[in-house]
Amino acid sequence: MAALARSVLVTGSNRGIGLELVRQLAASRRPPQHIFATCRDPKGPRGKVSTGTGNGVVLSQALQELAAQHSSIKLVQLAILHFAFSLADTVNLPSIQRAIQAVGYHLKDQGLNLLINNAGISSHATLCSLDSQEMLNVFATNVVGPLQVVKEFLPLLEQAAKAAGKEGLSCSRAAVINISSKLGSIGLCLHVPEAPMYPYRASKAAQNMVTRCLAAELQDKGILCMAIHPGWVKTDMGKEEAPLTVEQSVRGILTVLASISQDTSGAFLDWEGNSLPW
Amino acid sequence: MAALARSVLVTGSNRGIGLELVRQLAASRRPPQHIFATCRDPKGPRGKVSTGTGNGVVLSQALQELAAQHSSIKLVQLAILHFAFSLADTVNLPSIQRAIQAVGYHLKDQGLNLLINNAGISSHATLCSLDSQEMLNVFATNVVGPLQVVKEFLPLLEQAAKAAGKEGLSCSRAAVINISSKLGSIGLCLHVPEAPMYPYRASKAAQNMVTRCLAAELQDKGILCMAIHPGWVKTDMGKEEAPLTVEQSVRGILTVLASISQDTSGAFLDWEGNSLPW
Repeated sequence: MAALARSVLVTGSNRGIGLELVRQLAASRRPPQHIFATCRDPKGPRGKVSTGTGNGVVLSQALQELAAQHSSIKLVQLAILHFAFSLADTVNLPSIQRAIQAVGYHLKDQGLNLLINNAGISSHATLCSLDSQEMLNVFATNVVGPLQVVKEFLPLLEQAAKAAGKEGLSCSRAAVINISSKLGSIGLCLHVPEAPMYPYRASKAAQNMVTRCLAAELQDKGILCMAIHPGWVKTDMGKEEAPLTVEQSVRGILTVLASISQDTSGAFLDWEGNSLPW
Repeated sequence: MAALARSVLVTGSNRGIGLELVRQLAASRRPPQHIFATCRDPKGPRGKVSTGTGNGVVLSQALQELAAQHSSIKLVQLAILHFAFSLADTVNLPSIQRAIQAVGYHLKDQGLNLLINNAGISSHATLCSLDSQEMLNVFATNVVGPLQVVKEFLPLLEQAAKAAGKEGLSCSRAAVINISSKLGSIGLCLHVPEAPMYPYRASKAAQNMVTRCLAAELQDKGILCMAIHPGWVKTDMGKEEAPLTVEQSVRGILTVLASISQDTSGAFLDWEGNSLPW
């Protein structure tokens, strides 16, 4: 079986699904030549994008240890947002641009094949506990930041699409995969009303729209775009009561990514490849 | 025919669809007893929420002249957002709370029957012209602000639902209507790819999710929630080339609002009552 892609970048790779994506990609029989594992602070105790749970020090260490075992893994600092505590978070363009320089240095003229926008935060706010500032920060982290990352990495993705020497759309040519959530499905909202989570749900619906717009805009450039729901996973975000292990979820995601093509661009699939309603 | 509702509040009522909603409600055969027409600055030249087009002075005057002709219309100042020029706009909670006081004074103990979240802004940003700060401001204006308005007005809506002395859901009992857009339909996105408009589309998809969450959460309180697409209308936002006049659009919207009930809560309809995909 061919490698999923020659080069892959995973945001938010210091823990949870991001860390496991890097781990399974590196350990695969035909690993990518370059696995760019990005997070806010890959070398320090602030590696974790804080949601108030978990242990940032330990989690950054896990990524460092993994990188020490696999030469394919390159740790790249990418702080997508400035954290402005009194007002909404804003996109940290200089950090994104520094990450592009670091990534471009390794890629030479082959471009980046696969960008996985995995970094994101949750929020359990109900209508009653809604905080408008928190809601804006969730939009910044889950929608605006990742879209800005796509915009800035676009030249590298276009380069990969051209360098691949093949037609059609696939992750091995050039692709943007946005890690979404079933909770972002507006159509399923009335079926899972027990989790209002307004900011998180609204941000994931917005992100799904962004994925769909990107799919429409980038297909002529040879770039596939798709949203994927990783399942409800035992991570800091999903909590211990989640039914899926992170290993199971990521195994499913990577199987789906290896199979998608032209027909799937702009789709919203789950980790088992099932289509979800918008 | 009974009045659509005893009391109606319309945000962004100084121009376009908001102004026409107020006009047609006031001129109807059985007008609401109270029509609260809110905008940022109903008495001054800053009545217009600027998008860089149109004439704020003239438009505020139109609302003032309308209010002078109909005693049912009460002008209420409601600046949903602070405009923070360097960082993202933030919700102006004191202004929302002052508006609630003003509205509550007129309503006595009958509550507010119908809240129409009409205020919003457009943005034509493509991926190429994307500005992350502008995108956050579009989210603040089109999603976070309107949701905060619902949260703050909820006691008045609950009061109306109880005072109405009837079962079921309807605009005459208690309802939140969010003015949405077909461009917020993720399912239709690939069919209108010529208008990427990432920030606007993503904000309207997010707003649709919010509408759906509200519908699920508020139905047990007797409050109906729905999203409606007004059509592509000749306004400052829709421009002159739009096929629909604002009169046609609003006539359609009000006909739809008069007909909706329990079955329609959580729906996404257009101004002719057709269901749109999420």
